[in-house]
Amino acid sequence: MLEELKQKVYEANMMLPKLDLVTFTWGNVSQIDREKGLFVIKPSGVDYDKMKPEDMVVVNLKGEVVEGDMNPSSDTPTHTYLYNHFPNIGGVTHTHSPWAVSFAQAKMDIPAFGTTHADTFYGDVPAADALSKEEIEDAYEANTGKVIVDTFEKRGIDPDAVPAVLVSQHGPFTWGKDAADSVHNAKVLEVVAEMDYHTLQLTHDDSHVPQYLLDKHYYRKHGANAYYGQTNAKSQGHAKKA
Amino acid sequence: MLEELKQKVYEANMMLPKLDLVTFTWGNVSQIDREKGLFVIKPSGVDYDKMKPEDMVVVNLKGEVVEGDMNPSSDTPTHTYLYNHFPNIGGVTHTHSPWAVSFAQAKMDIPAFGTTHADTFYGDVPAADALSKEEIEDAYEANTGKVIVDTFEKRGIDPDAVPAVLVSQHGPFTWGKDAADSVHNAKVLEVVAEMDYHTLQLTHDDSHVPQYLLDKHYYRKHGANAYYGQTNAKSQGHAKKA
Amino acid sequence: MLEELKQKVYEANMMLPKLDLVTFTWGNVSQIDREKGLFVIKPSGVDYDKMKPEDMVVVNLKGEVVEGDMNPSSDTPTHTYLYNHFPNIGGVTHTHSPWAVSFAQAKMDIPAFGTTHADTFYGDVPAADALSKEEIEDAYEANTGKVIVDTFEKRGIDPDAVPAVLVSQHGPFTWGKDAADSVHNAKVLEVVAEMDYHTLQLTHDDSHVPQYLLDKHYYRKHGANAYYGQTNAKSQGHAKKA
Amino acid sequence: MLEELKQKVYEANMMLPKLDLVTFTWGNVSQIDREKGLFVIKPSGVDYDKMKPEDMVVVNLKGEVVEGDMNPSSDTPTHTYLYNHFPNIGGVTHTHSPWAVSFAQAKMDIPAFGTTHADTFYGDVPAADALSKEEIEDAYEANTGKVIVDTFEKRGIDPDAVPAVLVSQHGPFTWGKDAADSVHNAKVLEVVAEMDYHTLQLTHDDSHVPQYLLDKHYYRKHGANAYYGQTNAKSQGHAKKA
Repeated sequence: MLEELKQKVYEANMMLPKLDLVTFTWGNVSQIDREKGLFVIKPSGVDYDKMKPEDMVVVNLKGEVVEGDMNPSSDTPTHTYLYNHFPNIGGVTHTHSPWAVSFAQAKMDIPAFGTTHADTFYGDVPAADALSKEEIEDAYEANTGKVIVDTFEKRGIDPDAVPAVLVSQHGPFTWGKDAADSVHNAKVLEVVAEMDYHTLQLTHDDSHVPQYLLDKHYYRKHGANAYYGQTNAKSQGHAKKA
Repeated sequence: MLEELKQKVYEANMMLPKLDLVTFTWGNVSQIDREKGLFVIKPSGVDYDKMKPEDMVVVNLKGEVVEGDMNPSSDTPTHTYLYNHFPNIGGVTHTHSPWAVSFAQAKMDIPAFGTTHADTFYGDVPAADALSKEEIEDAYEANTGKVIVDTFEKRGIDPDAVPAVLVSQHGPFTWGKDAADSVHNAKVLEVVAEMDYHTLQLTHDDSHVPQYLLDKHYYRKHGANAYYGQTNAKSQGHAKKA
Repeated sequence: MLEELKQKVYEANMMLPKLDLVTFTWGNVSQIDREKGLFVIKPSGVDYDKMKPEDMVVVNLKGEVVEGDMNPSSDTPTHTYLYNHFPNIGGVTHTHSPWAVSFAQAKMDIPAFGTTHADTFYGDVPAADALSKEEIEDAYEANTGKVIVDTFEKRGIDPDAVPAVLVSQHGPFTWGKDAADSVHNAKVLEVVAEMDYHTLQLTHDDSHVPQYLLDKHYYRKHGANAYYGQTNAKSQGHAKKA
Repeated sequence: MLEELKQKVYEANMMLPKLDLVTFTWGNVSQIDREKGLFVIKPSGVDYDKMKPEDMVVVNLKGEVVEGDMNPSSDTPTHTYLYNHFPNIGGVTHTHSPWAVSFAQAKMDIPAFGTTHADTFYGDVPAADALSKEEIEDAYEANTGKVIVDTFEKRGIDPDAVPAVLVSQHGPFTWGKDAADSVHNAKVLEVVAEMDYHTLQLTHDDSHVPQYLLDKHYYRKHGANAYYGQTNAKSQGHAKKA
């Protein structure tokens, strides 16, 4: 079942090593079929160079394995929670990419310091609240999803406009319209974390972009008035929708 | 039209991933035919591994597309402005290379700290003034060109001697005698940004090169008395003009 | 003799350049056959691209060469000491990987700042006490093993739970159930050293993980209740035991 | 003439891009035939991927081209000066490798902080005195050699024991028994510069190795009592002399 989706999820997972986002097996990507209420996710702890599309595991929105002989990613309950609470997202990625983890370990937001950030994230990427002892000991992975959703609600951040979070002392989760888009956002996050780290060492001034520059860059690529890319070109050829 | 120029611009754009200067599609290179008053530029948002020479777009000095079915780079009005105001330049490159962006986000010049810098840039590479709210909301990309040109004028910097700038909170633009030369300068800028960042962390002393060392290295490679490379060699073989 | 073990040790050594853990010949890996009381180790100073499985040297637990025409790694007495004093370990790796060495030169522990660390190391990775002048001049390499073992004893650290150490002003040693596992741990150590360095520059707060998060992640991958990976899956196929 | 030496010098130059020590054409390697009083050096400004062994230029100890149609490296007078004043050296390498340049721009020695350093350099690698205005304007490249030699004399450093220097605000020169050995030392210098930079950010303590550890590691690889590598092995096979 869902063979086409398994292929897409497999390919999105294979982008992680290609984009230098994982060491060993430390990452996982999923994509949901909203009509069927099922998502497909990487199996747990399988080497990227041995993984095959048919190894992907099918899971329902209660987090139960529906098809597949292998264990799904140990982070599956986090993916489940996010799909249940962020209704517009179609794909989720988790990695331990080193620059994003450095901020996560420091429990610091990745600040919106430039247009590279603003092109993808409409504001700071939040470091979620730390999980309590009880949340960790009881249903750790589901509660990881819960603190993410709670943080977005408490801080009034729209998860569709800021499709990324840092789980404190752990690492980044990103999402998007599908698996590939969530991997794209994981790479952007890693690159802006690297840039922001260096900017923070160069100056003690606040380097946040002003709201009007954030607006300009974000809406150059998103929404009805976007004009980046080839969507409205005479020929859309092999061009990418931005 | 301009098939040879399209090929050159295509090849110069393909140097960006080869030189590790771009992530995804975050860069663009153009080259002008001064006699015809037309320049050729990368299409917007097209993946480097799918791009073909015939996808390049021809634009006139009013910024109008003269030939090509695809949208030109969204930064085309910046290129147009630079070609109109810097009369000696033949090529322009824009990237989000991470070390240069780190300085751009901090609104700091990239200082002339060593001979690696002096070989290519005759003085500090300026961080341009930030755009105002009005400049961003009205003709953002053209005004990006305007703040670059205004910064060079206000600070009395010769754009032929310092062929690079940082757009504040955005990233670098470089230029040169043609597209390939502007890409070369983009790489030099990234390398010196990396070196200068580390020097700034190592010492609080002012590490600027003295004027006579700047003169020595710059004129070793530029102008009538240059003696680097093979220009005046008995055999110029496959050697590069420096 | 021990041809199968030589092949495994050869392959584990060849992982070092593949995982970017060595420059030139600056690393060595060994694995022990506990029943025979013999271990196999890389020869000293041999280039990775010229090394062959049959070059591996067989050594007994007195540190004497039992088979092999080449000199064993100059660090052989350190491996010998570790095998003699840490009875559960099956493989040892030494490298000069740059992030771990940076901490070793500073004589600083690599702190348990996140789940990437906790997945493999159950607590801070200690910087061993410096060797005295006498320990260096007399049996340097054996005494390197001695300060490692003494540091673990003095600080009450279980070498099976924290399979890594920094030798002060020198570099990391890691161990594991076999040669490949010790190389895996060397890579994890390098990655967390990189992350921790950046976290230490981002904040002056103590970023140590709380004990309950350390417990959660460590025991998610280790011991009877581990649930990461495919050990208890319906199909264990080509999956890795975590 | 000197065809075998040209081949060796060509191969040593080609190691620079392979070891990530150069951007564009920013490096050069030479080797001397002491009996003939001639050395072979890379031509100036030639791309590594177009360079051929027969492009190498033969120069005498007055710095005059003896054979070759191309201009020799613009740094040839520095190489000449070094061969004339350091009588035991057989090869010289110059690069703009970024970590070493970061220290050179800060006019800081690369300190002997660990065994990685001590294995190759018997003490701090000095930053040479800056050249005066007069020294730069008059015979810049020869005077670059002069400040190197003067710095070693003034500080009482043996160039055979510390085969490397930083030219202030410029970059590293290294030397060795032949061209390949000088390239090896250029790589070691770059690696220890990277490690030392990070150690300096981690702690304000003085991280210099004690003299007895410096002695131990240096003499483990150098001199009559060296025991690293395969020199005194039963089979020296394809092993490298350390």
